[in-house]
Amino acid sequence: MKATDQGENGEYYAVIFSSQRTDGDNGYVRMAEEMERLAAEQPGFIGVDSVRDASGAGITISYWESLEAIANWKRDEAHLAAQRRGKQDWYRDYKVRICKVEREYSFPMEIER
Amino acid sequence: MKATDQGENGEYYAVIFSSQRTDGDNGYVRMAEEMERLAAEQPGFIGVDSVRDASGAGITISYWESLEAIANWKRDEAHLAAQRRGKQDWYRDYKVRICKVEREYSFPMEIER
Repeated sequence: MKATDQGENGEYYAVIFSSQRTDGDNGYVRMAEEMERLAAEQPGFIGVDSVRDASGAGITISYWESLEAIANWKRDEAHLAAQRRGKQDWYRDYKVRICKVEREYSFPMEIER
Repeated sequence: MKATDQGENGEYYAVIFSSQRTDGDNGYVRMAEEMERLAAEQPGFIGVDSVRDASGAGITISYWESLEAIANWKRDEAHLAAQRRGKQDWYRDYKVRICKVEREYSFPMEIER
């Protein structure tokens, strides 16, 4: 993901998805890959960053150009089906936070905003 | 972390720290624990959520009541020393994003905002 792939006015948004997986795969990995592929095709998608540890705790953050792009992806048909399976089979619990990125900086240094 | 521990006006902020560790511990784990303990003592601290996988990719998100609380923690003396060691020894690269949480929801359901 490149920090330069932002909305035209420089503003962009982050969806923080913090989750705890249930035991077993149950089709999760295949679906997660498919959702990442589909998300990347959505208008306004910037990038995604995802980490899960051996205990099943995970944080996935997707970045978007607008709140509208986030809302559109939330109601995508294939994504809605995945959300249902998520509650039923894959996640013990999760929390979603929709955030506006106000400022960022990097090491090694990129341009500071 | 409880979603109810927010700023008085309900607004709060997230600091997303996405990083890639260098190889070896080099005192990292001890310092990370110490920083988490110290951060939790700062005024305006709400909570922290951290995941790192076996490849050394990690996401740590700390939550704060205000941008001022975030700025104060960034210039804490012990934290400044840790930041220097981080660049020198512990992180291949990292990116920090300071975000305003605009909306959140949970599964199983908590109160939606």
